[in-house]
Amino acid sequence: MTFMLMKRDWRDKMHEIIYEADTKEGKLFDVALLWLILASVVLVMLGSVKTLDSKYHAVFNITEWAITILFTIEYICRIVCIKKPWSYIFSFYGLIDFFSTIPKYISLFFIGSSGALLAFRSLRLLRIFRILKLGTYVGESMKLKRALYASRTKILVFLFAIVILCTILGTVMFLVEDDAAGFTSIPRSIYWAVVTMTTVGYGDIAPQTVLGQFIASIVMILGYGIIAIPTGIVSSEITRQSLNKDDIKTVSCVNCSAENHSRNAIFCYKCGANLSS
Amino acid sequence: MTFMLMKRDWRDKMHEIIYEADTKEGKLFDVALLWLILASVVLVMLGSVKTLDSKYHAVFNITEWAITILFTIEYICRIVCIKKPWSYIFSFYGLIDFFSTIPKYISLFFIGSSGALLAFRSLRLLRIFRILKLGTYVGESMKLKRALYASRTKILVFLFAIVILCTILGTVMFLVEDDAAGFTSIPRSIYWAVVTMTTVGYGDIAPQTVLGQFIASIVMILGYGIIAIPTGIVSSEITRQSLNKDDIKTVSCVNCSAENHSRNAIFCYKCGANLSS
Amino acid sequence: MTFMLMKRDWRDKMHEIIYEADTKEGKLFDVALLWLILASVVLVMLGSVKTLDSKYHAVFNITEWAITILFTIEYICRIVCIKKPWSYIFSFYGLIDFFSTIPKYISLFFIGSSGALLAFRSLRLLRIFRILKLGTYVGESMKLKRALYASRTKILVFLFAIVILCTILGTVMFLVEDDAAGFTSIPRSIYWAVVTMTTVGYGDIAPQTVLGQFIASIVMILGYGIIAIPTGIVSSEITRQSLNKDDIKTVSCVNCSAENHSRNAIFCYKCGANLSS
Amino acid sequence: MTFMLMKRDWRDKMHEIIYEADTKEGKLFDVALLWLILASVVLVMLGSVKTLDSKYHAVFNITEWAITILFTIEYICRIVCIKKPWSYIFSFYGLIDFFSTIPKYISLFFIGSSGALLAFRSLRLLRIFRILKLGTYVGESMKLKRALYASRTKILVFLFAIVILCTILGTVMFLVEDDAAGFTSIPRSIYWAVVTMTTVGYGDIAPQTVLGQFIASIVMILGYGIIAIPTGIVSSEITRQSLNKDDIKTVSCVNCSAENHSRNAIFCYKCGANLSS
Repeated sequence: MTFMLMKRDWRDKMHEIIYEADTKEGKLFDVALLWLILASVVLVMLGSVKTLDSKYHAVFNITEWAITILFTIEYICRIVCIKKPWSYIFSFYGLIDFFSTIPKYISLFFIGSSGALLAFRSLRLLRIFRILKLGTYVGESMKLKRALYASRTKILVFLFAIVILCTILGTVMFLVEDDAAGFTSIPRSIYWAVVTMTTVGYGDIAPQTVLGQFIASIVMILGYGIIAIPTGIVSSEITRQSLNKDDIKTVSCVNCSAENHSRNAIFCYKCGANLSS
Repeated sequence: MTFMLMKRDWRDKMHEIIYEADTKEGKLFDVALLWLILASVVLVMLGSVKTLDSKYHAVFNITEWAITILFTIEYICRIVCIKKPWSYIFSFYGLIDFFSTIPKYISLFFIGSSGALLAFRSLRLLRIFRILKLGTYVGESMKLKRALYASRTKILVFLFAIVILCTILGTVMFLVEDDAAGFTSIPRSIYWAVVTMTTVGYGDIAPQTVLGQFIASIVMILGYGIIAIPTGIVSSEITRQSLNKDDIKTVSCVNCSAENHSRNAIFCYKCGANLSS
Repeated sequence: MTFMLMKRDWRDKMHEIIYEADTKEGKLFDVALLWLILASVVLVMLGSVKTLDSKYHAVFNITEWAITILFTIEYICRIVCIKKPWSYIFSFYGLIDFFSTIPKYISLFFIGSSGALLAFRSLRLLRIFRILKLGTYVGESMKLKRALYASRTKILVFLFAIVILCTILGTVMFLVEDDAAGFTSIPRSIYWAVVTMTTVGYGDIAPQTVLGQFIASIVMILGYGIIAIPTGIVSSEITRQSLNKDDIKTVSCVNCSAENHSRNAIFCYKCGANLSS
Repeated sequence: MTFMLMKRDWRDKMHEIIYEADTKEGKLFDVALLWLILASVVLVMLGSVKTLDSKYHAVFNITEWAITILFTIEYICRIVCIKKPWSYIFSFYGLIDFFSTIPKYISLFFIGSSGALLAFRSLRLLRIFRILKLGTYVGESMKLKRALYASRTKILVFLFAIVILCTILGTVMFLVEDDAAGFTSIPRSIYWAVVTMTTVGYGDIAPQTVLGQFIASIVMILGYGIIAIPTGIVSSEITRQSLNKDDIKTVSCVNCSAENHSRNAIFCYKCGANLSS
């Protein structure tokens, strides 16, 4: 029984370190993990550069194995110290942990085609968000998320209109321009419409005829003006939130029931009654 | 007479299914139509890709005929079950229905030049808006439309100024740069000015001389700054709309039933009656 | 004396037609002038297209002479019917009228180098603004101008910071990248910095080294973020103007001196006193 | 002792001229310095243009020596007339003054590799900010800085999300596209993602496969929409600042001297005293 208790204690301690950031050890673990993830992602990137890979292949391979083993240990620890292991394993972060660790082991068996597989390790980057959930920037990112969430229907309507518009404009340009300018099919013309509408403008496909350039000019001015819409939506939402939340008390005066008292008000601005009474 | 009544009933039922979305059948019909339109548009797109068309020409042709016949039946039904057929036929959606269905039939007679004609079938995409009129996103898209409508004169003034500015800048660049850089005529130089001002920047026409690049830099910074104007217009309009909604009491005066009282109003601004009584 | 009076009358009538838009004839004159200007500008544009010019040179020349003579008559009329001719001649629009009419006459003497000279005729486009001054869109464009004027110091500070930033970033890129990538001199590198910062991105000059691409990425994200500043400035200014001007009465209550009454308020929202008393 | 006093006086006078702008001489000194800096920066730029440098090398060299000597004198004066020379020498502007003056002297000893070194002289541009600190645009730039400072956490969260997003999208594109399209390594693909997301769009790397173009389209629309976020953040911050200024009484309470009373406040929100008494 004492052994069971001890084990429980040990697992509780580990759970605190790995899953929470309140204790000193928990914070240290998070910071260490953060750097390990960043190091591992940088390694994946450098490994994809052919000239570097051919030179330092052995170094990359050994470091990657070391990191993979560390992540494997972390993965096992996470399963061991949690009460409901299965709910972790099939959670969003559980799946990311698994699929970003496994590729290196698979590469032992399939040597040839492992390149694409290894890029899966970039998924580790998503793990950073788990660590940051416990960080200090949560408040602000929550505000942003709330603003985006509040205006999600407006944004969806906007995106939908953009997609329809690009499809129609792409089809029109397919009819107007010929193959030489790069408008070889309707999907490719739609791709051009998106590139132009969003003001990216690669230039790999560009209208050559006068009529095509005229239509393209309209598309550009349209795209240039349309950007005002999402900006306006989000601006207005953030303005409203910050005006409501930051400056105005939710308490109304008990005497005259006036509202919209500024945050640091003690007395009602209308009748002079004490607000906290 | 009973036959007449029965016929009327049958046509009323059909009208309800096709033109409205309140009943279960009406919704089902709308969803089925939505998918059929999407499938047909995807088909038009794939058919424009030469490699796919040469391989699966027969499949595309048969599917397209099937869809065209379904749309023809729908078109006939719409005419049959409506009370004023002519007002439907010459309405916006009536014309779209007609011109997006007819090309396939015409292609029977003119085999050679039917390519351009068939692209008209993309117009079917516009029919999606008819279906969505009955959908749930109407409220939000109405708000957007109202904000755009309220700021239409400001936006027109802005667009007009952009067009004038691009014309003058294009002419200046035509004088400064020579043909080698792509500035072969004034319309082409204006096209360049639009491409640059809207920050699209294809790069097919780009200034080569020092003076040209200096003017281009000014155009770019101008264009970069000018985008603030439509954004500001729409932002402010949406902000005002959403602020109004928040700052205005939902209570209407019991005496004169005036609405839109500001939040902290005690007396009606129209008749002076006490609002809380 | 009657002749003098008659003459005065005749000149007054002409002044009314040419300079004002209140009478029916004045409006007609403005509309006719508007179309003539547009036609003349389109002619200048088409004349710059080499293929068209070689084909229709005679047509263009004759039409241009007709338009030039009409503008000359208008110019003489403007001088004749105004009381202080010199103040008109040296006014902004007076100079534009002169310099956009004279090139055709000069081209009689200097046949060879008249190409550049003739492009001066595009200046006629600026005359459109004179006509529109009398139009209906003045109110809105005034609001825009006021918003821009109110935020001019903020915008100047911003533009100044952009120029400094582009100069420093251009110099840095000149050191990092070599000539092959197009960074042949500091002014050219600054041009690149402007092209990148404003998100235009022609692609005629683009970083090739890893360090250069890294710095370029930072420049891009910077430029992408920085656009928020002018937008924010103008947005806020327009929002403030429309909130102040449209919704709020400038009158304060004579009884309790409460302010911010909504536009259509008759009674004070605070004490119920009549606002118009 | 009189000599000491005289010397002190002389140094005080110089300090006033060099470090302050209240007196007539101080302003003159600042304006002269401003033009000298601009001239010197233009010289650095022109010197980097190879064709100009080979022609006017001697002129550039002599002018540069003249400017360098003037800046050296200024640097010595600054040290001499300040009370704590070391705190100036190691201050931000002290270091810039030193490192933008020294390269010309170093170029005497190392003739070959001085090109890169000389570009350091562009740092002089930063000295403009010191002069402008004393200028008239300070108020507005302070407002901008305050707005940016107030929204710094939101902007950091946003930039962080952009970097993560670009990394993941870059990796995905590296897997989807092959080397021919320019996606040769993950860092290069991330560079492409930044170029696309920020709507710069050079076009030196562009997707070629259908899947790649489809993903790219999503990236573009994403980037096009995401720009709404920083814009919204800054807009809302500037709006709030300018609204606060308008909605707040300039009167402070006579009883407790609290400030920032809202416009229609009658009683002090802090002590309850009547504000109008």
